[in-house]
Formats: sequence, C-alpha cells, structure tokens
Amino acid sequence: MAHIELGNDLPGIRGLMAYSPETAEPLNALAEMLLRNDDNSLSRGERELIGTYVSYLNDCFFCQNVHGAMAGYYLQCNTMQIDHIKQDFSSAPLSDKMKALLSIAASVQKGGKQVTTEQIDKARAEGATDREIHDTVLIAAAFCMFNRYVDGLGTTAPLDREFYVKRAPQRALEGYQSSVFK
Amino acid sequence: MAHIELGNDLPGIRGLMAYSPETAEPLNALAEMLLRNDDNSLSRGERELIGTYVSYLNDCFFCQNVHGAMAGYYLQCNTMQIDHIKQDFSSAPLSDKMKALLSIAASVQKGGKQVTTEQIDKARAEGATDREIHDTVLIAAAFCMFNRYVDGLGTTAPLDREFYVKRAPQRALEGYQSSVFK
Repeated sequence: MAHIELGNDLPGIRGLMAYSPETAEPLNALAEMLLRNDDNSLSRGERELIGTYVSYLNDCFFCQNVHGAMAGYYLQCNTMQIDHIKQDFSSAPLSDKMKALLSIAASVQKGGKQVTTEQIDKARAEGATDREIHDTVLIAAAFCMFNRYVDGLGTTAPLDREFYVKRAPQRALEGYQSSVFK
Repeated sequence: MAHIELGNDLPGIRGLMAYSPETAEPLNALAEMLLRNDDNSLSRGERELIGTYVSYLNDCFFCQNVHGAMAGYYLQCNTMQIDHIKQDFSSAPLSDKMKALLSIAASVQKGGKQVTTEQIDKARAEGATDREIHDTVLIAAAFCMFNRYVDGLGTTAPLDREFYVKRAPQRALEGYQSSVFK
C-alpha cells in the first residue's frame, strides 16, 4: 500500500499521476520529449536503456521493468538480455559509444559531480555528440527523480515481469502523455 | 567550463535550458507547478526550502543558492538563517510539521526506499496532509534531477552568493517558466 491514500489502485507512477494530474502533465511531457521525440540521434531503445539502467541502479522495480520492457521491445531483446545489460553492460553486445554513455549515466546516478572529464572525453572519442551526452545526463537525472517519486511514496507494482513485457507494444504506440488515463 | 559546448555563458541550469529549450519547457512547467502554484497548503517559501535543503544535501552550489535565496525572500530570512536550516533544521525555528517534511525530503535524497512509514506517521501526526507529503516527496525527487542535470554537465555558477539574493525578487515576480529567456 502506498504511503498516502491515492484513491486508485493503479501501479507505480500511474497511481501517483492519477492522484496528481497537474504534476503528471509536465512529468509526462518530459518523458515524452526525452524518450520518444524522434528528432534524436539516440534511438528510442537506447534512451529507454539508459532509463532502465539508472532505475536498476536505484533499485526501482516498477521503473526498471516498465522501461526494461520498452527497451526490449525497441531493441528486440528479451528480459534476460536486458537483465544482462543492467548487471554488466561492459560485457553486453552494445556499441562502445553506448557503453561510454551508460558509464556517464551510472555516475549521474551517484551524483552530478561524479561525472568526470575522462568519461566525457571517452564518450566523444567513441562518437557521442554533445547533444547525446546532454540527453544521457538528463535522462539519467530524470530517472533519479521518477524512481524516487515511485518508491518514496511506497507505491506498489505487479510482481509478474511478463506484465510489463506484454504492455510494452501498446505503450510504444500510445506514448507517455496519455499514460495517466490508461 | 561545462562538459559540452552550450553556445552561451549563462550560469547553471539557465545555460542548459537555453541550449535545450525543448526539454526546458517541461522542466520549467514542473518547477512552476511544484514551487509556485498557489493552490497548495505549503507556502512558496516552504516549498523552496525543501528544494534548497535537497540541493544542499546533493552539494549543488547553483541550485542551493538560487532556491535558498528564493526561500529567504519568501520567508524573510537572510542567508545565514537559511544556512542554519540547511545544516541543522532540527534546531531551526521551523514548525514541527516542516521538520517532519524535511526529514522525509532527506530520505528521498538518499533514495526512494529510505522513506519509512514512521516518517510518514510523524508528518501526519504533526498535521501534514497526504497532499503535502506527496508534494514534499516529488519536490525532493525533482531536485535530485535538477541538481544532477546542473552538476552532471559541469555547468558554472557565480560564486558571489549575493548575486542570487539580489536576483530573487525579480525571479519571484517572473516565475520559472520565463527563466530560460532571461
């Protein structure tokens, strides 16, 4: 049971967004822009992967499963493959650029000042643009918010991980801005 | 110098928002709703104080000074008084409800799962509503994002703390949604 009376039994952030639609609006607009906007050289799957990895580092069950399923859907990976990336991305079949960006995301998760110029230089050397570095930092930072919102209010989440996988194609179709009403 | 080429020399998050106006829009809308919306039983000063305290815990110089100055402006406190609250709110002249909410914010800063039912019960016993608990958690979570965005991209900030104090009245007048253009 959540720490506050939500007046609904929707899981994770969806219950919070139904409780507080006025804050849900900018939160969903941010997720939509960061994760789905097509004017971005990082694919939707890559951006979902950054969010998934940060949610894993923050130990947020709901977010790492929602976004892990989205990443899996876009990147055509199964849950085991996504779990492998979360647990040890360095040995996963990802580009060196993506590995460098995930390393930056891991530092952001610890704290903004943990990002080093060496990490930035490495990402650039692997072909990351300033825009991609910017988006990686902001996606990682945003998931540090979403994860804390979801867990800080003690929301509940379906334990069956297949639930998230089954929902992913529909969510990919609808996007985040409509999620509060579903 | 920031980790990426921003194309402007605006300080802190303002440089990032000018670089990326498409993400600035939902970020500013969120700040506006959380910190300024008048349909809220927490005063603007109290909400700025929560953001200031979390920014202090995250060691974000820019955010703790911008929002510390805003809190000081609304609550009619000087920089020394705000510093006292940041360093030891339990001995500061704040309501017991506000102290209970700041304790929740401190847990959120560490991680969502750090918030305990005892903290929630304590806040309720001191008169906090579910809405106030919700907003405290989301403000604290949002500053964990803003702080990481600002420091994760290595932005610069004016070191003179009076700069922020002097700017606060104008910012209070204009709000956050216009800040990217100033």
